[in-house]
Amino acid sequence: YGKNTIKFLRLHREGKKHFVKEVEVCTHLRLTSPQEYLEGNNSLVIPTDTIKNIVLVLAKKNGIPSLEQFAIDICNHFMTTFCQVMYVKTYVQEVPWQRLHENGVPHIHSFICVPDGIRFCEAEQCRNGPLVVFAGIKDLKLMKTTQSGFEGFYKNEHTTLPERHDRILCGELFCKWSYGECKDFDFDCIWYMNKIRECILEAFSGPPDCGEYSPSYQKTVNSIQMLVLSKVSQVQVIEVVLNNTFYNVLDMKNLGLNNDKEVLIPVEAPYGSCACTLGRKKFFEA
Amino acid sequence: YGKNTIKFLRLHREGKKHFVKEVEVCTHLRLTSPQEYLEGNNSLVIPTDTIKNIVLVLAKKNGIPSLEQFAIDICNHFMTTFCQVMYVKTYVQEVPWQRLHENGVPHIHSFICVPDGIRFCEAEQCRNGPLVVFAGIKDLKLMKTTQSGFEGFYKNEHTTLPERHDRILCGELFCKWSYGECKDFDFDCIWYMNKIRECILEAFSGPPDCGEYSPSYQKTVNSIQMLVLSKVSQVQVIEVVLNNTFYNVLDMKNLGLNNDKEVLIPVEAPYGSCACTLGRKKFFEA
Amino acid sequence: YGKNTIKFLRLHREGKKHFVKEVEVCTHLRLTSPQEYLEGNNSLVIPTDTIKNIVLVLAKKNGIPSLEQFAIDICNHFMTTFCQVMYVKTYVQEVPWQRLHENGVPHIHSFICVPDGIRFCEAEQCRNGPLVVFAGIKDLKLMKTTQSGFEGFYKNEHTTLPERHDRILCGELFCKWSYGECKDFDFDCIWYMNKIRECILEAFSGPPDCGEYSPSYQKTVNSIQMLVLSKVSQVQVIEVVLNNTFYNVLDMKNLGLNNDKEVLIPVEAPYGSCACTLGRKKFFEA
Amino acid sequence: YGKNTIKFLRLHREGKKHFVKEVEVCTHLRLTSPQEYLEGNNSLVIPTDTIKNIVLVLAKKNGIPSLEQFAIDICNHFMTTFCQVMYVKTYVQEVPWQRLHENGVPHIHSFICVPDGIRFCEAEQCRNGPLVVFAGIKDLKLMKTTQSGFEGFYKNEHTTLPERHDRILCGELFCKWSYGECKDFDFDCIWYMNKIRECILEAFSGPPDCGEYSPSYQKTVNSIQMLVLSKVSQVQVIEVVLNNTFYNVLDMKNLGLNNDKEVLIPVEAPYGSCACTLGRKKFFEA
Repeated sequence: YGKNTIKFLRLHREGKKHFVKEVEVCTHLRLTSPQEYLEGNNSLVIPTDTIKNIVLVLAKKNGIPSLEQFAIDICNHFMTTFCQVMYVKTYVQEVPWQRLHENGVPHIHSFICVPDGIRFCEAEQCRNGPLVVFAGIKDLKLMKTTQSGFEGFYKNEHTTLPERHDRILCGELFCKWSYGECKDFDFDCIWYMNKIRECILEAFSGPPDCGEYSPSYQKTVNSIQMLVLSKVSQVQVIEVVLNNTFYNVLDMKNLGLNNDKEVLIPVEAPYGSCACTLGRKKFFEA
Repeated sequence: YGKNTIKFLRLHREGKKHFVKEVEVCTHLRLTSPQEYLEGNNSLVIPTDTIKNIVLVLAKKNGIPSLEQFAIDICNHFMTTFCQVMYVKTYVQEVPWQRLHENGVPHIHSFICVPDGIRFCEAEQCRNGPLVVFAGIKDLKLMKTTQSGFEGFYKNEHTTLPERHDRILCGELFCKWSYGECKDFDFDCIWYMNKIRECILEAFSGPPDCGEYSPSYQKTVNSIQMLVLSKVSQVQVIEVVLNNTFYNVLDMKNLGLNNDKEVLIPVEAPYGSCACTLGRKKFFEA
Repeated sequence: YGKNTIKFLRLHREGKKHFVKEVEVCTHLRLTSPQEYLEGNNSLVIPTDTIKNIVLVLAKKNGIPSLEQFAIDICNHFMTTFCQVMYVKTYVQEVPWQRLHENGVPHIHSFICVPDGIRFCEAEQCRNGPLVVFAGIKDLKLMKTTQSGFEGFYKNEHTTLPERHDRILCGELFCKWSYGECKDFDFDCIWYMNKIRECILEAFSGPPDCGEYSPSYQKTVNSIQMLVLSKVSQVQVIEVVLNNTFYNVLDMKNLGLNNDKEVLIPVEAPYGSCACTLGRKKFFEA
Repeated sequence: YGKNTIKFLRLHREGKKHFVKEVEVCTHLRLTSPQEYLEGNNSLVIPTDTIKNIVLVLAKKNGIPSLEQFAIDICNHFMTTFCQVMYVKTYVQEVPWQRLHENGVPHIHSFICVPDGIRFCEAEQCRNGPLVVFAGIKDLKLMKTTQSGFEGFYKNEHTTLPERHDRILCGELFCKWSYGECKDFDFDCIWYMNKIRECILEAFSGPPDCGEYSPSYQKTVNSIQMLVLSKVSQVQVIEVVLNNTFYNVLDMKNLGLNNDKEVLIPVEAPYGSCACTLGRKKFFEA
């Protein structure tokens, strides 16, 4: 049980310059005894209202140095304060506020919401087990208008899809990776120094002057994973889900027109999905 | 990988009387080899477009005798037709069309959408493993305006919630149960003869003339599980999630009024959540 | 300016039996002077927080006898209390809680949310003008699986739609009508005695044993309007919007099957829409 | 009546460089005669399917030089082709694809969706009347963390809001302006040369080094209007709606902490809204 979507803004001031971190937190607990379920005995139950208070108190006291560190702080607090807690899991996602700029000059206290991919993280811990930290980015919508195809696939009497060597590849990415057992990482440093977001965009799109051919959504998923694993040594395992929107080239012959991939119709339902989890020296797909 | 939200309507006619079943299907596969991820070799890949075609062909040929039977048919088809499929999972949910009635007379071909809980099911199978069937109901919003409290909980310096013995209990229920290894069940018969939906409503609300006191969300979750397990012998394990909306009694003293639980404000975020999975002779909570 | 989505629950008790009305209210004002826009002078501005307080105070004091009466009460309060208010408009919509029944017995304090059409109303008044009341129902999703066609329409070189005399008609209805200048109506009485909702369903679907042929969405819209106007003398003008979902009969020839309107695919985007406003002795469409 | 959410992607290629414009179009017509409503006579009705075809054919033939020009093309087509059309209105909104950059180098065919404000436009025309063009931006979420207050407002017994001279101002902007009767404008040129979006951001936030004090949401709305009208001579009338999210400073005294505007809770419902329409030499608010 736990509390979901605890939303708040943490404002930090350095002189006249303001810094904002708006987040949404979910924190779930499992207790040592199920007596509240079976007997209606609430004596060990930490109310979800208290869970909320603790999250807000920690934000007030420590600030949010990074999403990951904040999630770790929450887990640590519950494990060390409450001996009846067997397991704790915290999810933190960020509202994508960006500082406004006027003619290149950063504004001291004005911000704009730019939701081109949402950063999130998770931390979880079982009593007597290691604290494990995950980070990720979701709701990242990308498109390449060529250098994508799908050929040589399995066919039988139910196959109606034609082979294509030039189609649009468009989808929403969900990427989540594990940093393994938590060490004293500077998580924002890993994120920015390794340019994880840029890695993902680059693996998706290829070189800017020519792109790179993708023979399938699956291969693109794998390319993203391989590049992140090769560039970011702290990442142990990476899961990527690509939910793709097909763009059908509209047949306009009955309207007397020859449509050379100029007008395309997005097909939002049904949509294909492919997911893969890749670790170091081992892999498995789901 | 797979195809999500394959939406279609299956129309069945008996003379002038029409029967509709509109569903949304997701089907996911895992193949024996990950060569399409690693090498871009698509030769074993069944396109998600073909997956969609197969679902529609099965609906056309067999109809949808019950959601569960349809999900089983899909799993069986993939397992028996494609030796490269290691694992298949199918989710089916129903659009809640109900036959219209005029002055008590059922209409032969008119329907209304009544989303007071959505039926769904899942079937999954690993090659050489049993086919397992789940069923459930979700998005079921219930409220009781008394006979609910929360007292005797754990308190410390972060506790600000007062004890209450008379509050509103309101939430959205998600219930999912397993029928274990699939036998030749008539799933709709189990659903209707055992009145599973009615069971859930009854366990939530208690007797119509007085209700039944709930000492916590957790206990209500447990009551629902116990009643379903006791009344429906085919159910092996039942998971219930209750996402609750709190209703705060508005303090109107500064407006010169004494609000005796007459005006209440729903608090949609953050919201509490409690989940429990209960099986026969064993239990575990999550 | 004003306050939107003021949500609250009004609980009414008669002995042990509870009655709930949960609503969402929007109230907007226009002031006599725009000085707060032009000069930043707030001296006449009633804060939206005060607007919210007034709505809640009226709910506490008067209850919600009917949605319409509550909207009228709000308008009257602002017009009589604040001479700087030039115009007031209030919208009220209801959360569709229904009393639970167990084996036909109504429960004294348990409710279920059944969103098969949402009741709403509006009241508006200019200073020195009449108070006008509207009522309506929205989000009402209906379907008939036959007795609908579309033939004899205008054709040119851009027409690809075939004529059809047997198709599915499915759509979401929005109906809003005016009661004209407010008299001392018992609005719930008008609603229930005249069976307005039943009227709409009947006009949509026709007799239960055979239905009634609809030659177009437009004609169905008109039938609904004509029936409501003929049965409910208090209704002056009625606007109906029908947003329709097409169901395409899937061509399965390339899958070796003859699909006799058994498997149909809903097309949610783009969707057609038709709207008409019909009054007594005059009409105009939009 | 008409067709809503006609979604398509228009791909334009210049050598290896690709340009995308993905839009969503709604087109509505009013005919000279209501005979289809009253008599079920469809002979003048242009099916919504044909409306969709025409939009797609125009996109294929002319491309989308600018959203506004495309909307004008659609209106012109209906007015000149169909003498039974009395009135036509077209709404076009853009999916915010932006070209990807790698280390500052633009990618030739890869794009990312960046929804930080959505551009849209409208064109409408009555037969024998002028064609009028509107343009705008919506879903633009902005925040300033200081330089905002609300004081000196009207107070009575229902006022509980304290005066504040330092609060967070956060809201979602909707701006729509009229270019008056359509002349041969280069609409994208107006947009980019006049930096309309930058105007709005600047009027909201003030100078980057100090900001500018806002005494109310209303005054901020007016500042945006004044700046756009002063900088963009082609704009005749501008409507701005600001839906604001309040951020409450959390009272943490009962948790033993002094919260100096460090932790704030967003209040999403109810939300305030203020709207104003400002023209040249005249104004009116709504």
